[in-house]
Amino acid sequence: MSERAVRYAREQGQRFVSELKDLLRIPSISTAPEHVADVRRAAEFVAAGLRAAGMEQVRLIETSRDQWQGKPGHQGHPLVYAEWLHAEPMPDGHTRPTVLLYGHYDVQPAEPLEEWKSPPFEPTERDGNLYARGAVDDKGQMWMQVKALECLLKADGGLPVNVRVIVEGEEEVGGEGIAAFVREHGDQLKADVALVCDTEMFAPELPTLCVGLRGMIYTELEARGAATDLHSGMYGGVAPNPLVALAQMIAQMKTADGHIAIPGFYDGIEAPTAAELEAWRSLPFDVEEYRRREVGSTELTGEEEFSVLERTWARPTMDVHGVVGGFTGVGAKTVIPARATAKISFRLVPGMKPEETFERYKRFVEQICPRGIQVTVSLIHSGDPIVISTENRFAHAATESMAEVFGRPTVFMRSGGSIPIVGDFVRELGTPTVLMGFGLPDDNLHAPNEKFHLANFHRGIESIVRFLDRVGEPARAES
Amino acid sequence: MSERAVRYAREQGQRFVSELKDLLRIPSISTAPEHVADVRRAAEFVAAGLRAAGMEQVRLIETSRDQWQGKPGHQGHPLVYAEWLHAEPMPDGHTRPTVLLYGHYDVQPAEPLEEWKSPPFEPTERDGNLYARGAVDDKGQMWMQVKALECLLKADGGLPVNVRVIVEGEEEVGGEGIAAFVREHGDQLKADVALVCDTEMFAPELPTLCVGLRGMIYTELEARGAATDLHSGMYGGVAPNPLVALAQMIAQMKTADGHIAIPGFYDGIEAPTAAELEAWRSLPFDVEEYRRREVGSTELTGEEEFSVLERTWARPTMDVHGVVGGFTGVGAKTVIPARATAKISFRLVPGMKPEETFERYKRFVEQICPRGIQVTVSLIHSGDPIVISTENRFAHAATESMAEVFGRPTVFMRSGGSIPIVGDFVRELGTPTVLMGFGLPDDNLHAPNEKFHLANFHRGIESIVRFLDRVGEPARAES
Repeated sequence: MSERAVRYAREQGQRFVSELKDLLRIPSISTAPEHVADVRRAAEFVAAGLRAAGMEQVRLIETSRDQWQGKPGHQGHPLVYAEWLHAEPMPDGHTRPTVLLYGHYDVQPAEPLEEWKSPPFEPTERDGNLYARGAVDDKGQMWMQVKALECLLKADGGLPVNVRVIVEGEEEVGGEGIAAFVREHGDQLKADVALVCDTEMFAPELPTLCVGLRGMIYTELEARGAATDLHSGMYGGVAPNPLVALAQMIAQMKTADGHIAIPGFYDGIEAPTAAELEAWRSLPFDVEEYRRREVGSTELTGEEEFSVLERTWARPTMDVHGVVGGFTGVGAKTVIPARATAKISFRLVPGMKPEETFERYKRFVEQICPRGIQVTVSLIHSGDPIVISTENRFAHAATESMAEVFGRPTVFMRSGGSIPIVGDFVRELGTPTVLMGFGLPDDNLHAPNEKFHLANFHRGIESIVRFLDRVGEPARAES
Repeated sequence: MSERAVRYAREQGQRFVSELKDLLRIPSISTAPEHVADVRRAAEFVAAGLRAAGMEQVRLIETSRDQWQGKPGHQGHPLVYAEWLHAEPMPDGHTRPTVLLYGHYDVQPAEPLEEWKSPPFEPTERDGNLYARGAVDDKGQMWMQVKALECLLKADGGLPVNVRVIVEGEEEVGGEGIAAFVREHGDQLKADVALVCDTEMFAPELPTLCVGLRGMIYTELEARGAATDLHSGMYGGVAPNPLVALAQMIAQMKTADGHIAIPGFYDGIEAPTAAELEAWRSLPFDVEEYRRREVGSTELTGEEEFSVLERTWARPTMDVHGVVGGFTGVGAKTVIPARATAKISFRLVPGMKPEETFERYKRFVEQICPRGIQVTVSLIHSGDPIVISTENRFAHAATESMAEVFGRPTVFMRSGGSIPIVGDFVRELGTPTVLMGFGLPDDNLHAPNEKFHLANFHRGIESIVRFLDRVGEPARAES
């Protein structure tokens, strides 16, 4: 065990935080065309950090995507690649395992800006937390990985395993660039295990391994009515209203009790095992506390026949994220818009396939489309649902490392979120993945006042150091 | 009959158009806080025009409103007042009637800008039409009134009747300022008849008197769920989604067949008379042509048991104009917004009271509000529905004047739109109103590429000249 690296981490911790703040000041919002240059700046920052840590072959890999409508051929956001492949052979002559570290340097938009207590791109420490967009998702957690490599390389002069690093800048917009790279150049990312630090702990002080992710499809549903915007006085009563039509279609897709009424939607779903459900029941979880402190609504909603953890981890759902069209300024405009678009996503669970769900949804929408309205459904991005086995040496190395750092046993949880690349690692590369996350349930991911508990930033670095050490141990490599 | 004034109108017609273009260049969008100064500039322009015409006591009258949230005490947009009260007495010593001319100088927002063939505030002539925001609604029609007064005053040295002019700058945002002025200082607008030029003709070349307007309530329906925006991965399945809730409520308010399901909504509605319905059936109207050329949708929607004219003129309806909240940028953001607001209006017909309808709607929304959601309904503005008698000398003067100018008999129509001040004139001042409009059905009111057919601008001036002359004739005054 590299106690030198752990000591280095403790001595240099303040500098690590200060560097993270510099990274957080870059508004690398991957979905916003006006921030393309900032996203690239963040990529360069990560590459520089990897170089300074002592990693080799550090470079940006360009991706190309067609996300920006009207800007065909626009470059996607670059990947950052690094490697260090000089781990000493095992005493028996076998090579050490190769670990692929994955994170992302792009962030979600910061709106609504007026709800931030400190500006989203001016990182601010309050009560042991660092507040900024991307603090925990995922700049802070990705920076833990970079710093863990630095600790080992600087303190020991080498790594206990071979390491490849791939950091993407499109995770928040579906990760098409990295998916294409994995498909086409997967051999360059060949590894025995992938370590992803982009999830959260079940509760403060409770080391947690995430063993399941929901998949998703993110779509746009466009409704078109009249040829042009019309005056609701002149034409109200005969002109189809795309906003009313969207409401009618959405209401038919999701019932008041939280069920999704698309035919066949739930077909083939794999329920969690009895053992898993039993383990979830033993997690420290107070529904009323969760409602009050995390959600803050008068009631929790959804399928009452399932527990809250089942509803968020193991049940598919549908949400509407925004409606574009008509008049949304201050005051009144009596317009019947010619067209309107709803941003609608579905979270998927094991047993569901994104393509199949999208087809069912599309077919249903076309069937229920109101009179006088034409609809178009577009798939913006998608990701497979994932369940990860806990019975392998890599999972053991992770749970033991975290248990050591936190001083208590590691628990297993699933996440309701989606990290599409994890599915690609499994499917395309056959690489098992370890999801070691250090976020907290109240870290406000994707919301105003996102934060990272700084104690967990430091514990994360130490956990990764110990994990890499453990994975490199001969006894374990032979087990 | 003042043939001199008519001749003056014909000689000066080009200058009148050129002045109108100057007025149209001012973006006097009354709903937009950033255009407050432009709105005032338009008011000054109208006042200058009235002064140049020879009108007296020309002045701006300040109004105060609380429309701009967060800017309490902000001044409303000013009224423009003018008068000329020196009409010679009748041969029998009676005073001549007083006519109140009403119009508005504010306009609707111009969005979506990309659909305009020429910029909305750069008036452009094409094929005998003048294209600009406000060309017909209502700067063009209001300018006809100002120019008709100029023709009479310059050509004859006086007017055939006493005239007061009131022009408002808040018609597109509910007209609260003028409503308050009418309530509090109605005596300053005392008149025998009001002439409103803010409606349209039933068809090109068909002189039309508008004898009915729908009323309206414009509302905002806000739904609130969680305390803050949430990640749809983490919380999808248990967090209430205000956008889904709005959709569910809207779908429950308006059924697929166009009926409004709010209990009591249709109570007390007064249907048009059999004679009126008979007259409507004789109007030159081709439903298929209307669908194809005016609406441009695949079908017309709404209550199939009523004709298209009944649906738009004599039936109440509900429309959604925009939904604020969540993520509406390019690309994807997986947010469950904490709150969302729908802009929803209802058009009302005779027998309905705005306050009563609003209460019914509010009560219904509170009843059907989904679990975990809290709603607030706000009334942004409202106006009474109106039906006007055709059996009085002022209506006769209008129909005869227009028939003379267009060379064919004047028809009666209603409009599905709302001009709240007309209700106030009737209720507060007891002033009958004549709605003489010169717009065309394809003038794109409130939509991109609004236009005014220039031939109708000139005919409108001549019709107003003849109308004022007729109202001032002794024989008629005694009838």
